[in-house]
Amino acid sequence: MTIPELERFLTEHFPGVLDWAKPEVLDKARARVRLPYKDEYLRPGGTVSGPTLMALADTAMYFLVLANIGLTIHAVTTSLHITFLRRPEPGDLIAEASLLKLGKKLAVGDVRLYSEGVAEPVAQATASYSVPTS
Amino acid sequence: MTIPELERFLTEHFPGVLDWAKPEVLDKARARVRLPYKDEYLRPGGTVSGPTLMALADTAMYFLVLANIGLTIHAVTTSLHITFLRRPEPGDLIAEASLLKLGKKLAVGDVRLYSEGVAEPVAQATASYSVPTS
Amino acid sequence: MTIPELERFLTEHFPGVLDWAKPEVLDKARARVRLPYKDEYLRPGGTVSGPTLMALADTAMYFLVLANIGLTIHAVTTSLHITFLRRPEPGDLIAEASLLKLGKKLAVGDVRLYSEGVAEPVAQATASYSVPTS
Amino acid sequence: MTIPELERFLTEHFPGVLDWAKPEVLDKARARVRLPYKDEYLRPGGTVSGPTLMALADTAMYFLVLANIGLTIHAVTTSLHITFLRRPEPGDLIAEASLLKLGKKLAVGDVRLYSEGVAEPVAQATASYSVPTS
Repeated sequence: MTIPELERFLTEHFPGVLDWAKPEVLDKARARVRLPYKDEYLRPGGTVSGPTLMALADTAMYFLVLANIGLTIHAVTTSLHITFLRRPEPGDLIAEASLLKLGKKLAVGDVRLYSEGVAEPVAQATASYSVPTS
Repeated sequence: MTIPELERFLTEHFPGVLDWAKPEVLDKARARVRLPYKDEYLRPGGTVSGPTLMALADTAMYFLVLANIGLTIHAVTTSLHITFLRRPEPGDLIAEASLLKLGKKLAVGDVRLYSEGVAEPVAQATASYSVPTS
Repeated sequence: MTIPELERFLTEHFPGVLDWAKPEVLDKARARVRLPYKDEYLRPGGTVSGPTLMALADTAMYFLVLANIGLTIHAVTTSLHITFLRRPEPGDLIAEASLLKLGKKLAVGDVRLYSEGVAEPVAQATASYSVPTS
Repeated sequence: MTIPELERFLTEHFPGVLDWAKPEVLDKARARVRLPYKDEYLRPGGTVSGPTLMALADTAMYFLVLANIGLTIHAVTTSLHITFLRRPEPGDLIAEASLLKLGKKLAVGDVRLYSEGVAEPVAQATASYSVPTS
């Protein structure tokens, strides 16, 4: 699956997603997704809000699942565990999702979230997606 | 802390939160928060999106933490684990947060999310918040 | 399923489990399991070790899954999330597992662990089990 | 901290741990711990039991925390999230713990568990430890 193919699918089925989450790298092993900075993501104290980080982690994992099982609206998150490690800088955020398992029932991935240009992650998530049975 | 006190604090520091998350019950043991239905929360298939549920769970736990430690912007989520159990109905969602622990460093709570009027939860979350040291 | 039926199954397939984990209540909605106190569960500081608590939570959820899907060795844990809340007392521990979901692929439950006679839990776990497809 | 220093501390405070968990690599960034195979770790179906894997993940993270904060019995697990990915082979298991964050209150790490000689992990865990305030 190419990124333009993913983008056409998202435009059709998830209008608005590409306004905030930009796929930059995509293959069966990993997905990189950029969240371009917007003031609206900030919470008091000048840091990016937790729900914004959770949405980004979930979205990066969704793109990675699609790269593995094909374009479908029927892959859904079954669980997500996120640990917040450092306060993000106000700036673009980068999600790096990597595949831990693609099973018949579940796909599992690790997602690291970074402030662009900073080596240490701001959050780590583990997400499981239900793989639709065809 | 009364709900009007919480609402004044939110209006000042988190403008916009009360547009979507309505505190309905609040004491030191539990918080109930309503998410009035909007079409924009839906994802394909007619179900409420995962990030919407995660944001609601996190917000309900935040209100519960404030009820315990007082109004502060310095309580932040350290981790959140959510399991999605059933597809929510298109309708209001209700979060019921209950306190598991209030320690010197961390507050921990259990959050159940429900479609209004349905007995079985659509999701369960466990969230930890860092308690600011004064 | 009755507790004696469960115990016969465990004796045959998991010899040794009943030496430490005693099912006390079992129906489709919940399972209560007792861990009788032994010095060997302690770690320095006089508290029960984390792995002992994790094993107890996992076992209580397994018994609850069996009560729902029947006696099988093919139900396996897919994920477990545990938060340690308070230091257990040196004494019997009680696990209370309750069912959150029984799906076609996954069963999910909440497990609270208690020091006997103490109202506040020492740990909370959420566990998912894979349901074997027959 | 050297591995012999860690081993002397464990022998004194956690007698028995070194009988099953062998530290092989230890620095501030990561810890590798081996679990030499024993039949007693198996559960029906010939796979290593979940609680054995949980104990190994927790122990590897504990060693990594000690390498960062010094030898203490007062660092305790606050939460552990584990996802089981594949059935382990009957053979030695290897835990690779890497540090995600060392904060003033919490240390967080990622732990991957492997069957020796197999590239894909059998489980992934994220563990948080409370850092004692001196």
